[in-house]
Amino acid sequence: MKHILFSLILFSALSISAQNEDSIFIRKVYNMALSNGESYENLRELCKDIGARVSGSAEAEMAVIWAKNKLESYGFDKVYLQEIKVPHWERGTKEAGWIIEQDGTISSVHLLALGGSIGTNGRIQSEVISFSSLEELKKAKKSDVEGKIVFINQRMNEKQIQTFKAYGGCYSIRGYGAVEASKLGAKAVIIRSLGLPIDKHPHTGSMDYEEDVTKIPAAAISTQDADILAEKIKTGSVEFSFEMDCREYPDVISYNVIAEITGTENPNNIITFGGHLDSWDTGEGAHDDGAGVIHTMEALRILKEMNYQPKNTLRLVLFMNEENGNRGGKGYAEWAKSQKNEKHILALESDRGGFAPRGFNLDGEEKYIQLLASFAPLFKEYDLHIFEKGYGGVDISPLKNTFEGIPLVGLVPDSQRYFDFHHAPSDVFENVNKRELELGCAAIASILYLFDMNLMGG
Amino acid sequence: MKHILFSLILFSALSISAQNEDSIFIRKVYNMALSNGESYENLRELCKDIGARVSGSAEAEMAVIWAKNKLESYGFDKVYLQEIKVPHWERGTKEAGWIIEQDGTISSVHLLALGGSIGTNGRIQSEVISFSSLEELKKAKKSDVEGKIVFINQRMNEKQIQTFKAYGGCYSIRGYGAVEASKLGAKAVIIRSLGLPIDKHPHTGSMDYEEDVTKIPAAAISTQDADILAEKIKTGSVEFSFEMDCREYPDVISYNVIAEITGTENPNNIITFGGHLDSWDTGEGAHDDGAGVIHTMEALRILKEMNYQPKNTLRLVLFMNEENGNRGGKGYAEWAKSQKNEKHILALESDRGGFAPRGFNLDGEEKYIQLLASFAPLFKEYDLHIFEKGYGGVDISPLKNTFEGIPLVGLVPDSQRYFDFHHAPSDVFENVNKRELELGCAAIASILYLFDMNLMGG
Repeated sequence: MKHILFSLILFSALSISAQNEDSIFIRKVYNMALSNGESYENLRELCKDIGARVSGSAEAEMAVIWAKNKLESYGFDKVYLQEIKVPHWERGTKEAGWIIEQDGTISSVHLLALGGSIGTNGRIQSEVISFSSLEELKKAKKSDVEGKIVFINQRMNEKQIQTFKAYGGCYSIRGYGAVEASKLGAKAVIIRSLGLPIDKHPHTGSMDYEEDVTKIPAAAISTQDADILAEKIKTGSVEFSFEMDCREYPDVISYNVIAEITGTENPNNIITFGGHLDSWDTGEGAHDDGAGVIHTMEALRILKEMNYQPKNTLRLVLFMNEENGNRGGKGYAEWAKSQKNEKHILALESDRGGFAPRGFNLDGEEKYIQLLASFAPLFKEYDLHIFEKGYGGVDISPLKNTFEGIPLVGLVPDSQRYFDFHHAPSDVFENVNKRELELGCAAIASILYLFDMNLMGG
Repeated sequence: MKHILFSLILFSALSISAQNEDSIFIRKVYNMALSNGESYENLRELCKDIGARVSGSAEAEMAVIWAKNKLESYGFDKVYLQEIKVPHWERGTKEAGWIIEQDGTISSVHLLALGGSIGTNGRIQSEVISFSSLEELKKAKKSDVEGKIVFINQRMNEKQIQTFKAYGGCYSIRGYGAVEASKLGAKAVIIRSLGLPIDKHPHTGSMDYEEDVTKIPAAAISTQDADILAEKIKTGSVEFSFEMDCREYPDVISYNVIAEITGTENPNNIITFGGHLDSWDTGEGAHDDGAGVIHTMEALRILKEMNYQPKNTLRLVLFMNEENGNRGGKGYAEWAKSQKNEKHILALESDRGGFAPRGFNLDGEEKYIQLLASFAPLFKEYDLHIFEKGYGGVDISPLKNTFEGIPLVGLVPDSQRYFDFHHAPSDVFENVNKRELELGCAAIASILYLFDMNLMGG
């Protein structure tokens, strides 16, 4: 009896002391991020000195060079590039659209080609036929749609508190609108931007074509213009006209940028974490995903600066081409699989913006979710409260099928403002708050430390 | 045995059904706020059509008229004004400051008189003596300070996650800097603005004089200018010069604006809630406290629109003069005490900005804190997670001594951006996010409903 009691007391004392150590470590991480951080200045450089960086662009190339130089300057154990092939789509120089009413009144709209769209090959014009969802479009008769411009005016559900779910509920109009409209003989498709505010900013994003379906041009108009167009359609037949000279070029060589601190106990155990270096070609990719790049770079810098010697190898991967192909994520997973001696024990991603962090999601087995949940008390004073099952991220998603059972973790920032800026000209440095960004960096450095301390890859 | 079991099952079924009812009610509240809300447009009117509204100003008068008209338009059971006397301080037309180095180099600074400061009576100029805190100033020798301009350069602690605590840690330099500097014979005092970012915006706010201590002028310079001044002081003696023609005028008549929905079961049980209608005279008082005014107006509008018949009387009070005297709060408490038949069962305030809500604080007995905590599960899907002991608010604070045991509740929005804008020219409508504002309105309407359903005033 005495023995059991003694063990219990010892265990509990040890556990309290470990918690205290963790607490102290995390406090130091936050202090560094908030007082001596480099995150905000790094984001400024990425946004202002480079700018928007769609895959295959000169800016994307510059971002690779910038990130490699920056990571080398921090003195990590390894910094290297990983070659991948990426799509190369360019918006071109001409992009404009108009509503033309029956009485000849012309109103210009704010419009962005969807990423991957073909151009219009000169100005095209046609009667508009409007649908409220992809499902409605699919049910339409070919004779009603043929030769027209399809307008899909599905509004993001502002009543949905989880804005990513509201986005998910509309995603199909952007991804598959062109294919479905084309199947019915439409000339082109325009969609209501996937954004929550009613404003003038169009939101671009990826779209798909299908092999045996004629490619037609696809663009997003601003939510404000979508409301205006919908109003005009109510009063009678309306035409839409637009011109875009975007086009796809042959694939080009690009890179994931990788940095590592080698594990002291289990160097072959790999914790992969990162964000994506590419962005869409509008705005500056500040929240999407400049913030994720900076969060994870800064997390590794802080751990290095604190002289933290990880048990497992911490590998930062700045992925290329999340937006239109996920070639970086796929390429990394394939390469990781080919490294026969590596054991991948966790992957983490930040790709939901640079807002005040609220916690982490984990996609994986119950034991990992419980481990994550056990960290929650350490973050209470930092106002993080979400430690539960959920999605990891696009870049790390290919690791799921590559390494059975690998837990995938996603940072969860406050999402209420994300779809004000996502893929829009307004996704600029000025719309990222310094302090909120820094808190994200600290949250990630802290959780990496905790996972490293608690995961041995069984 | 059977009986007990039956009772338990019945009780539990009832409780689940009540929870479901609450859930459904709250969902409707959120839907109204997010889909058919008037909060954002109302805030626009208050900020843009009226603007900054310091007590005693024409703008404050206009705000009273605007609020009364607006509340009347909503058809509440009662709308009335409550007369109070408020201070009347005006910034005047001249406000400018300069750093003068030994070699004659002159640099202008961004400066705001502290609220209540006397003017400089023409331009004044003197050598600067710098202190890092009020405590340091208090320990200084009179001979070192006499005839000089005291500069208190205390930085808000950016490592403090709870930004209101960081503010509290610096508050004394603004509140008592002039008195302490004057005691040592200083000519004037300038303080580092109480703001977290390093930027060009000075932050004003209230300050105190003491009866037997000579009044000296007091101003805040921007954090950026404070850093510049501190750097220059390091290299040698520096003078500071400034001119302000602010002054105090005799008190004027003003008003709290009040609206009520009468309780159906206990009309004499009063739940008071509100924000403050006055603001500082810079920016537009958008977060401080336009948001709180709008949060609480919109909460009552939503409850009315939903045809909610409260058991207790819901009384919205838009307080005048929180910023420099709290005459509205004090006046209301006195008046409430004189209403002999009234039983004040709860008061709630929103005065921490229009950011995404994270929960509620309660200042009161343990039973009320437990009641508040019992509401937490209902708010999980809305990402609210703080339901704990804490501060209510300035306006409702006089009720604490007036009605023994009254629980005081404060909305807790995310605080990370608050001290970017607080009392600064940047506290404008554009810096309030529509969706975040709406979520605050819904949170308040929901918690008012829950308290009304659960409090009978025992």
